Amino acid sequence: MVNPVLPSSGVLSPLGLDAVRPLPGFWGDRVALGREVIVAHCREWMDKEGWIGNFRGGAPRRGREFSDSEVYKLLEAMAWSGDPGLPELAALVARAQEPDGYLNTRWQGTRYLDFAWGHELYCYGHLIQAAVARLRVHGEDELTAVARRAADHVCRRFMDAPEVCGHPGVEMALVELYRATGTERYLEMAARFVARRGTPALGEVPAGRAYFQDDRPVRLARVLRGHAVRALYLAAGAVDVAVETGDGELLAAVEAQWERTIAARTHLTGGMGSRHDHESFGEDFELPPDRAYAETCAGVASIMLAHRLHLATGRARYADLAERTMYNVLATAPALDGRSFFYTNPLQVRVPEEPRAGVNHAAEGGLRSPWFDVSCCPTNVARTLAWLPGLLATGDAAGVRIDHPTPAEIRHGDLRLRVETGYPWVGEVRVRVLADGAGRIALRVPAWAEGARLSRRPAAGRPGHQPARPGYAVAEGPWRAGDELCLDLPVTPRWTYPDPRIDALRGTAAVERGPLVYCAESAGGTPSLDAVTARTGPPAEHAVAGAVELEVAAQIGVPAEPGWPYGPAPGGRDARPGGEAAGADTVLRLVPYHRWGNRGPATMRVWLPV
Amino acid sequence: MVNPVLPSSGVLSPLGLDAVRPLPGFWGDRVALGREVIVAHCREWMDKEGWIGNFRGGAPRRGREFSDSEVYKLLEAMAWSGDPGLPELAALVARAQEPDGYLNTRWQGTRYLDFAWGHELYCYGHLIQAAVARLRVHGEDELTAVARRAADHVCRRFMDAPEVCGHPGVEMALVELYRATGTERYLEMAARFVARRGTPALGEVPAGRAYFQDDRPVRLARVLRGHAVRALYLAAGAVDVAVETGDGELLAAVEAQWERTIAARTHLTGGMGSRHDHESFGEDFELPPDRAYAETCAGVASIMLAHRLHLATGRARYADLAERTMYNVLATAPALDGRSFFYTNPLQVRVPEEPRAGVNHAAEGGLRSPWFDVSCCPTNVARTLAWLPGLLATGDAAGVRIDHPTPAEIRHGDLRLRVETGYPWVGEVRVRVLADGAGRIALRVPAWAEGARLSRRPAAGRPGHQPARPGYAVAEGPWRAGDELCLDLPVTPRWTYPDPRIDALRGTAAVERGPLVYCAESAGGTPSLDAVTARTGPPAEHAVAGAVELEVAAQIGVPAEPGWPYGPAPGGRDARPGGEAAGADTVLRLVPYHRWGNRGPATMRVWLPV
Repeated sequence: MVNPVLPSSGVLSPLGLDAVRPLPGFWGDRVALGREVIVAHCREWMDKEGWIGNFRGGAPRRGREFSDSEVYKLLEAMAWSGDPGLPELAALVARAQEPDGYLNTRWQGTRYLDFAWGHELYCYGHLIQAAVARLRVHGEDELTAVARRAADHVCRRFMDAPEVCGHPGVEMALVELYRATGTERYLEMAARFVARRGTPALGEVPAGRAYFQDDRPVRLARVLRGHAVRALYLAAGAVDVAVETGDGELLAAVEAQWERTIAARTHLTGGMGSRHDHESFGEDFELPPDRAYAETCAGVASIMLAHRLHLATGRARYADLAERTMYNVLATAPALDGRSFFYTNPLQVRVPEEPRAGVNHAAEGGLRSPWFDVSCCPTNVARTLAWLPGLLATGDAAGVRIDHPTPAEIRHGDLRLRVETGYPWVGEVRVRVLADGAGRIALRVPAWAEGARLSRRPAAGRPGHQPARPGYAVAEGPWRAGDELCLDLPVTPRWTYPDPRIDALRGTAAVERGPLVYCAESAGGTPSLDAVTARTGPPAEHAVAGAVELEVAAQIGVPAEPGWPYGPAPGGRDARPGGEAAGADTVLRLVPYHRWGNRGPATMRVWLPV
Repeated sequence: MVNPVLPSSGVLSPLGLDAVRPLPGFWGDRVALGREVIVAHCREWMDKEGWIGNFRGGAPRRGREFSDSEVYKLLEAMAWSGDPGLPELAALVARAQEPDGYLNTRWQGTRYLDFAWGHELYCYGHLIQAAVARLRVHGEDELTAVARRAADHVCRRFMDAPEVCGHPGVEMALVELYRATGTERYLEMAARFVARRGTPALGEVPAGRAYFQDDRPVRLARVLRGHAVRALYLAAGAVDVAVETGDGELLAAVEAQWERTIAARTHLTGGMGSRHDHESFGEDFELPPDRAYAETCAGVASIMLAHRLHLATGRARYADLAERTMYNVLATAPALDGRSFFYTNPLQVRVPEEPRAGVNHAAEGGLRSPWFDVSCCPTNVARTLAWLPGLLATGDAAGVRIDHPTPAEIRHGDLRLRVETGYPWVGEVRVRVLADGAGRIALRVPAWAEGARLSRRPAAGRPGHQPARPGYAVAEGPWRAGDELCLDLPVTPRWTYPDPRIDALRGTAAVERGPLVYCAESAGGTPSLDAVTARTGPPAEHAVAGAVELEVAAQIGVPAEPGWPYGPAPGGRDARPGGEAAGADTVLRLVPYHRWGNRGPATMRVWLPV
């Protein structure tokens, strides 16, 4: 089976990349963009920046201490998409491995000096994930051997040692290598890394041990905290360990942490991370739109965690969050042309970023950049798009579940299905049965889709349309070629309000439509968003090329003279005596958040003052 | 004249520390606390941490690369208050100086390798400020000689070199040493440092050149930006240069930058700096209460800048901002016992900080700490309280201005005055004339003090009470011993609302009373502040020991079950059908912001949802 996550137990089983073939459509287009553009883009930049050359040696090493991991993420993306350039690059990596399995271009000769910041085990994690991808797509080859040697080295060195890596990630890789090879010590090693962290296993650092989740053991934690990517990778590894070892307590602990994280530490986009400082989660309800960090990699990691929890439990809730994050973080990060990326994904930008060429050092701001000093995000987007078909559908004993409607052909048992839909732009999802087969077909109904309906042709004795409640809409087989299911999801634009405890969003609302978050964007001469107030009437829809845009009525405040910005009048300096803001009527155009920033420097707001 | 800032021209002249003697009262108590507790506290910690021992040599050096500057700030505090321990500490410093004047315990032997981060010139700045203090209080001695040697070395090395220091500060010190010694090359060196920065004079850094104000020259900048302390020290140095060189254009540039900074980048407390990331200003109207950085040192620096602009222009507006910052940042930083300090001064704390002993590594949070890795704030509080009497009153050709009413005796010419007041707790400020004298007496009327009145006894033919508009209330001499002026400032609590462009404060209001910002504090079993909504009726006042506390009516929301925190109902998950928040009526006790956090771990809000 070709999939990055193949648990040996769980409510759901993933469908392989060989069983789900995306067709042109929202995700199919992006999978193709990843394969045809982003992989080559990452390869070019890593050649230029010397990160690939580091494996050749000879010249002074370049890049940050974790740059090897970017090469491995590229290898993983190439593996999933069968890229013919993989063997050559894998051979280069293989030559840099030391006889005992150690492999790191930064620390060779001075290995394991600094577990907090060295990233050596983290790099093995990405190496192993690349090798597992290659093994599942192609079969055993040199890359498998490299990964086994590295994993065996890790087991020898760390099975009974006290250390863990400052950056989690190796845990899920070791579990997957165990799943792919059957070698049980890899699972044992992963389980020990998960159990060891938080005992504590690392030293004190200025950011505090919570930065790398070493403040308390995973099974005793209340909520995800610290560096968002690290927290999410660790939680994903803990789920893998829990599933393989039958540790229901550990799984329940991660589920509870996920619930609290969703309830109080997640942006509307699904983005995670509220602080630029240490790239970390904030406190509960600390969710500033302007300084939202919402790193692209944290979005990827959140999808990975939600996918694992979904497989383990079958709860649609996890797929809902994955969908939100796929459409509003994963799809947002790359430019429409696949050649530049957001590192952070804030929900408000007040000042248009000035364009600049080349590497972005600050890794933030309102313009996508082709490359970064810390360039984890482009390669993470590349590998995630490469395996994304493996996320779209799942199977259980009863049949197949279509978790993410997008044009695709799906095989499961003797069932052959074609999904036809313009989703997310339209709400109609049509599933055509291509060959006679048995089993249940279930379609996920997102939590926002109140009023969804499922219809079947031929009607099989039931009314033409059944209401479909959030969760799964289910139709039982057997099926004949030519049968058809149609799920109607209501994608009417809707106003969404924040919990009153989210201080940074008080007095605002956002517009969503289906799984998409929308935003106002100031590019192209539209009015300033500094002092805008929107009216929460029904937004108007406009089909544009490749998307649906919206319009809402608004008022633009009159900028006041500079002065002390605090005063006795409610509404501030722009206030009229009656407390109403003065201003001119206007119409705000809203674009899907994932499309913002593709027309040059702009200001942007997801949350509109209302 | 004994004052840290003695411009040779300007609308106002400072009164010396010898001419303003604080009596027990709000500031007199704090000046005494600084002299009697904080200086010794800083000395003890720097002995313990080895930062003083670094000047002895022999042992491995300890502390950050700029720790010498903390010793110099301590020396400055000791100089202003005539501390008898100064000569011994100064002699220790002197012995570490190299023959050519170079002096730095971190970089000796490897000098000037790194202008961006080395802090060598920054350290000279604090050394020179200490020496100027000693010179003015005591006369020339060994410390003067050390400072002259250092300044001469700087002039030789940098007069025609291209570099500046990554951290400004030496500019104002050199101008003051010029003022104290008449050596003109010090002024010329300062002027060149100010002119050179932003040309650019330093390399590119990840945070961007704006971090150390090297993105554009001072006279071309629009607003203060980057690292807040650096920006404010540089602006203060630019004012010093402008005043001494008669450069009205440079002065006007800084004034305009100050106005824009006040209008869009300053917290209600006067605190400056919105980002923990790089300790920096944010964009215009990026003023989050919870993540406000508002470093104590930025408060000190803002007082220094406002004081200089006030002297240069005579505009009460600058003293207004200084007062706000004195009462709400400078007075907030030290605990009431003077033995622990805030480094950052946020306007909201959601989660009580866990107490911890010893050095605070993160330099942030909701509990004061006795010391920090980067311990700039305690010594900055110490030196600022030591010279604070020099800020309280100014003179001009017509007479004396009392800028900050606090119990004190003041001499100016033949005038001898005693200020008697319980300000800021009461609004009555009484000025008693102690000896016959001539000249105008002016009392500053803060901008918030609408309805203030001035009365005079004997009435000198005028009505007993004159209205006193914001700016200065003026009474002309001559005066006889026993005459009395009384300024009545209305210190009724008032609700203050934010400019609607400050997104993070939408839907909130704060309570101020006189110059004091108030806050709700959750210590001692008072209800959670997570979901509180205040009613903006008149707050009730309660006198408590040493302060006035307030009470406002409020509702406490009912915490909802955890879940996705965004939904279709205005008001969020706690909403009743009518849009009203459900909740229990309560009374919120408000304490002066500068007194919060003195009763153990607590949550806190300045801005209350209304």
